[in-house]
Amino acid sequence: MDITVAIDAMGGDHGPHVTIPAALKALKDDDQLNIVLVGLSDAIEAELKARKATTSPRLRIHHATEVVTMDEQPQSALKNKKDSSMRVAINLVKSGEASACVSAGNTGALMATARFVLKTLPGIDRPAIAGIFPSQKGKTYILDLGANADCTPEQLLQFAVMGSMLVSCVEHKEKPAVGLLNIGSEDIKGNEVVKQTGELLRKSHLNFYGNVEGNDIFKGTTDVVVCDGFVGNITLKASEGLAQMMGRFLAQEFKRNWLTKLMGMVAMPVLKAFKSRMDPRNYNGASFLGLRGIVVKSHGGADSIAFLNAIHTAVEESRSGVLKRITEQLEIEHIQSQQIAFANTNSSDNE
Amino acid sequence: MDITVAIDAMGGDHGPHVTIPAALKALKDDDQLNIVLVGLSDAIEAELKARKATTSPRLRIHHATEVVTMDEQPQSALKNKKDSSMRVAINLVKSGEASACVSAGNTGALMATARFVLKTLPGIDRPAIAGIFPSQKGKTYILDLGANADCTPEQLLQFAVMGSMLVSCVEHKEKPAVGLLNIGSEDIKGNEVVKQTGELLRKSHLNFYGNVEGNDIFKGTTDVVVCDGFVGNITLKASEGLAQMMGRFLAQEFKRNWLTKLMGMVAMPVLKAFKSRMDPRNYNGASFLGLRGIVVKSHGGADSIAFLNAIHTAVEESRSGVLKRITEQLEIEHIQSQQIAFANTNSSDNE
Repeated sequence: MDITVAIDAMGGDHGPHVTIPAALKALKDDDQLNIVLVGLSDAIEAELKARKATTSPRLRIHHATEVVTMDEQPQSALKNKKDSSMRVAINLVKSGEASACVSAGNTGALMATARFVLKTLPGIDRPAIAGIFPSQKGKTYILDLGANADCTPEQLLQFAVMGSMLVSCVEHKEKPAVGLLNIGSEDIKGNEVVKQTGELLRKSHLNFYGNVEGNDIFKGTTDVVVCDGFVGNITLKASEGLAQMMGRFLAQEFKRNWLTKLMGMVAMPVLKAFKSRMDPRNYNGASFLGLRGIVVKSHGGADSIAFLNAIHTAVEESRSGVLKRITEQLEIEHIQSQQIAFANTNSSDNE
Repeated sequence: MDITVAIDAMGGDHGPHVTIPAALKALKDDDQLNIVLVGLSDAIEAELKARKATTSPRLRIHHATEVVTMDEQPQSALKNKKDSSMRVAINLVKSGEASACVSAGNTGALMATARFVLKTLPGIDRPAIAGIFPSQKGKTYILDLGANADCTPEQLLQFAVMGSMLVSCVEHKEKPAVGLLNIGSEDIKGNEVVKQTGELLRKSHLNFYGNVEGNDIFKGTTDVVVCDGFVGNITLKASEGLAQMMGRFLAQEFKRNWLTKLMGMVAMPVLKAFKSRMDPRNYNGASFLGLRGIVVKSHGGADSIAFLNAIHTAVEESRSGVLKRITEQLEIEHIQSQQIAFANTNSSDNE
């Protein structure tokens, strides 16, 4: 299926130096993909030239005069940079010229702009950020990773629906198992919001596994783990910090003296295989779910391999029709959830 | 300084087989330490005999007829097992016969019993569980690790005071840096409870660093990290799960074929050094803070090396007078916090 992805060519710590080689590779890998590079045309053309590449019907440039910086306040970007590469890339999704957009730019600005331009799906209070963690069984999708610090049980139910449909589409699983992140497996465990969310999930049509604990993320107990953005973001950052520390400890032990260095040289192929298995680039590309359009956020510091994975995610979501699946499932759950509490639906998508 | 520690000899997955060898080693290491082994005297005596050890003025047995099982409901243990090894060990702290107690038993039952028997310190709403995480700089103390799923800003302030005094006493740091676990470093970040807690902490007399993120735990940005028990427990379990997964991945890579196995044999000394650096036994012993007595919880699956570390923690806390320090600091902060909101102090320590 022919699809077009809009890329915020200027976003991230490295801008076109990363986004453009990734785009070129994506086009080479997939001959039914078209890409629109959005940003300062001079910078984009210079990078293309340096890569001995040219525009074509499959690779177009859409000029945008402004760039949102990585530390800019979301509301300021939203109000003052209406011709930013980020905003214009999202506009292309809104107008239907692209079926998805990918950006490595400022997360807060990207979320605020995407919500403002695209609006949320019917039934969704607030969009969530879904990301992938490695697990002993493969990978675990978690949401929300930080868009919503305070969540209601109804919002967490919406996240469960969105995460479930995402995994169903992207991983081709019929009924992904959904876990509710909690501090014990019994139904009575946890804070008030989580207890009420458990009740809603048990009444839903999702494949609800029940409560899961922090270690279940890495065991791969369920395909999807649902939590509020406060817990999700802290879990994400703590995991990054721990993995980094363990990697550093391992390196330090091998660098201790000439003998251990020698051992390290001998074991290098295995250590490389281990490193590649934990490589965060393989898990790059967080999905903004709940919007009327597909938006994928790459890590700001991504290199072109990592950014390419974010493009792949956007392509997969577009081809598998994740928006349609989410909308349909929301309707199914909506019928049921109207009897419970769905009053504040769609109340906050128009700032 | 001569001190006496009461040990719940029956607690944990392995009971006397672990608690008694650890107690014997603790006595050997520290000739100003006395230990009371609490539990079924037959079982204790049998284990002592197997170890060719005997009771002495420094090692006494205090018979208790019941044992709280690892899966028993806390309230049931509290009501129905008044002569359990756990309860009697806590009673010895209450009566002053011991200055601290250590148990590897059921966490919920231990907390419920400790709160019921010892009561909370003046100014403390609810006790918290403080544990140690490894960091790139050494270690980071975190609380709460799961005693309180929902917390008010005032309770989080109390946790900050308790954690700060614990580190001050046990690590001999004058003014430990306290971080508030959040999803961004700016004051405006986070959920409502955390934002209000930040305000209280900025007004406190503690060495408040500001917000810290998940990765700061392992970077060692601050000595103490404060969070509610929901976030703390999920972070703890997720970290355990990730470390376990990484260890397994590393082992799998070395076991892939005869060549990688050979590499693993060559690198074994380094891998062992790495493993020992991450060894959770080194971090065993969580402190129940906010009670009118010292209670240290060992991991249920602890071996005798791990349990010994929990005994060391109890000894350190006793000798350094952590209860007095917490009480004094609570008084200092109380003066200030009465102007803010301290209404619900001591409301819930008598179930």
